[in-house]
Amino acid sequence: MKKLLFLFFVCQYAFAQNSDSVFVSKIYSEILSNGKAYDNLRFLCKNIGPRLSGSIGAQKAVEYTQKLMASYGFDRVYLQDVMVPHWERGAKEEAYYLLNGKKIKVEIAALGGSVATGPNGLSAEVVEFRDFNELKEAGIEKVKGKIVFFNRPMDPTKVNTFAAYGGAVDQRGAGASQAAQYGAIGVIVRSMNLRSDDFPHTGGMRYSGGNMIPAAAISTNGADALSLAIKSNNNLKFYFKQNCKTLEDAPSYNVIGEIKGSESPDEIIVVGGHLDSWDLAEGAHDDGTGCMQSIEVLRVLKALGYKPKKTIRAVMFMNEENGLRGGTKYADEAVKNKEKHVFALESDSGGFTPRGFGIVGEEGDISKIEKFKELFVPYSIHEIGKGSGGADIGPLAKTGTVLLGFKPDSQRYFDYHHASTDTFESVNKRELELGAAAMASMVYLLDNQK
Amino acid sequence: MKKLLFLFFVCQYAFAQNSDSVFVSKIYSEILSNGKAYDNLRFLCKNIGPRLSGSIGAQKAVEYTQKLMASYGFDRVYLQDVMVPHWERGAKEEAYYLLNGKKIKVEIAALGGSVATGPNGLSAEVVEFRDFNELKEAGIEKVKGKIVFFNRPMDPTKVNTFAAYGGAVDQRGAGASQAAQYGAIGVIVRSMNLRSDDFPHTGGMRYSGGNMIPAAAISTNGADALSLAIKSNNNLKFYFKQNCKTLEDAPSYNVIGEIKGSESPDEIIVVGGHLDSWDLAEGAHDDGTGCMQSIEVLRVLKALGYKPKKTIRAVMFMNEENGLRGGTKYADEAVKNKEKHVFALESDSGGFTPRGFGIVGEEGDISKIEKFKELFVPYSIHEIGKGSGGADIGPLAKTGTVLLGFKPDSQRYFDYHHASTDTFESVNKRELELGAAAMASMVYLLDNQK
Repeated sequence: MKKLLFLFFVCQYAFAQNSDSVFVSKIYSEILSNGKAYDNLRFLCKNIGPRLSGSIGAQKAVEYTQKLMASYGFDRVYLQDVMVPHWERGAKEEAYYLLNGKKIKVEIAALGGSVATGPNGLSAEVVEFRDFNELKEAGIEKVKGKIVFFNRPMDPTKVNTFAAYGGAVDQRGAGASQAAQYGAIGVIVRSMNLRSDDFPHTGGMRYSGGNMIPAAAISTNGADALSLAIKSNNNLKFYFKQNCKTLEDAPSYNVIGEIKGSESPDEIIVVGGHLDSWDLAEGAHDDGTGCMQSIEVLRVLKALGYKPKKTIRAVMFMNEENGLRGGTKYADEAVKNKEKHVFALESDSGGFTPRGFGIVGEEGDISKIEKFKELFVPYSIHEIGKGSGGADIGPLAKTGTVLLGFKPDSQRYFDYHHASTDTFESVNKRELELGAAAMASMVYLLDNQK
Repeated sequence: MKKLLFLFFVCQYAFAQNSDSVFVSKIYSEILSNGKAYDNLRFLCKNIGPRLSGSIGAQKAVEYTQKLMASYGFDRVYLQDVMVPHWERGAKEEAYYLLNGKKIKVEIAALGGSVATGPNGLSAEVVEFRDFNELKEAGIEKVKGKIVFFNRPMDPTKVNTFAAYGGAVDQRGAGASQAAQYGAIGVIVRSMNLRSDDFPHTGGMRYSGGNMIPAAAISTNGADALSLAIKSNNNLKFYFKQNCKTLEDAPSYNVIGEIKGSESPDEIIVVGGHLDSWDLAEGAHDDGTGCMQSIEVLRVLKALGYKPKKTIRAVMFMNEENGLRGGTKYADEAVKNKEKHVFALESDSGGFTPRGFGIVGEEGDISKIEKFKELFVPYSIHEIGKGSGGADIGPLAKTGTVLLGFKPDSQRYFDYHHASTDTFESVNKRELELGAAAMASMVYLLDNQK
């Protein structure tokens, strides 16, 4: 009898695995044959474009995604108020250095949150450092009154480019305040880009005490040329002008679409991306793809007639790039309304071929999700395990939510990240769709998890 | 004592694994920091360009790769004579159909090996089929004197795009002879491309009996539009003109670079790609990347001061695209000279992020190579197992050589394959380099295999 019982459970398990693999295959077929994410992304990128928090583009993106989800007939589509920072670049930056009496023009972009230089710009000797230790060693006497140039490249030997980013981005985020401590009057930072090209990559920076000095990114080619010029010219003079400003906080929204759970409607699974983007391009990979994939997850489940057991929400978070106000507000509201978020999945690493999912949670939660690995092997997805979730869903951790980060191939991400190259054309339709299918499959499996 | 002996062997094994992982890591660091494959590929694509067998470009590519390998100081660099087919496209094709009295122009490209239409072109009613069964069902009375249009798309639901290619390419390879059996006078084939765009993709075709009728590829957008036009217009007339011709076989070469083995010089490991390319673009992914990666494998081993035990050869095969004469000749010479080829690895699936290696060999050979899996996990490579090798190394199978095919991510390959889009710009430097590093690591591990 015991043996029979055991056999019964083994069969049950095999049957569940089999029906899961059948449904996952349906998800892939629907998205690869009739997927809408690519066309929706085209609209977001080409008809709306840049959508930094507080901008008209951001507001249009709110309205577009609300209408789009309503058009798919989700059970509920609504907005969640959130006040966001409002920073504007203003007129295009100018920069050059003087080499043997000649002005060598340079492509720069003000970092998000930076102050302006004033209408006459800034001109001073430029000194180069690789990191904050070198800056500290140089000290006030070598830095005061100068422009500091941080030029440590992302480490190309890291196979995962996010690790290379993590090892270099302190220069962008904290470089201005670090340099200001030693009396610098401005900061130029090598772009967070592994490629040699002419595009400056902007991104968030923060002032943490000291004078608020202007900070800008310089393209990787520009950084290499500037570094060479400094080596061959003592006291090289650098000039830059930027016209950015921080305005009053502005009203904005998270955009939420929901399919109500049929068995446990109070248990919520979130799948999301962030709707805001930097202002230099179209925010295609960062993070139009994550938003359009998240909407596609709900669309495909509905199109296949699937009735989720738990409530499934697609959330377009506002203001990931320069404040995280949307993600913070969403978690605060969840706490206030005593909502039970069991899982949250974010796609904010680009619309490239899926490689896996990172998980943040208790050991037991992680090992349960790792069991799905086998189901993903036919789709060339192998990396499911402990990892990182996503910035916007991070604040949900305090409510005990298990967080998942969608993990696509990372090689090309920093070619586009925060630069004018992050356009619709840089997205491959199949790669985007395979991501959406992987996410939908994961959401389906999580929905069926006891 | 037995226990001690066991421990000793375990430690030996662990030590070997560890020193392997250290060397693999050195390979990756060298290539990701100082890799030359990308710049070499730029030269091949931009300074030489298209290099169909028998063309001036092919000859220049022979000379360039010979010089390049000589400049790296490989132990021996030499050419292997091979006579190759010589087909030329001639003047650009013209095509249109008549819709409500208007000429709708269409982008087509003659298929490689096709005959010309004659100077006045061909004009006839066009009939559409999805496959050879539909053609057969229609029979002579519906096909005779007409132009046959094969329009079965590659199956987008196949996750591996090579499977989708395999399921559609019969139309291109055999469509003309199949249609000629029923009296068709010309054939138009939907391009082997999963993307909707305006670029015709050429590729090889063969006549196998029946009349030799002209055959051309039409872009996917063109195919969709033509199909719609046929549906709304009985007896739609199609016109096309192409000017291609087959010339006398031409002399050409395989280009071979070699590092002599220090312990077993008579055992040979080949790593290669094919040097010839279709004439519409620069043959970047097909197969400039495979050639430049193969040369990079030998370069990095030498740069790291590694003395291979076996002899390692980089082979640039000539004429994969329309004859396989180079691969065939190479294997014939190996047999004639009683060379012992233990392993052959080909890269001919594009310069994209590595996913794994396919293996062709005895079960025992395969399982030995599968043991390397663990060493590749840190590099996000998971798919090592039974699979396919490569066209050029295929003829070596008869000598008992274990064949390996480098397996990169397949999603974007057919966006470029045989079309004017296959340019240097479509290659990402890191993706190319990661492929070279994976290949060099595999060659190193095979060299150390007992």
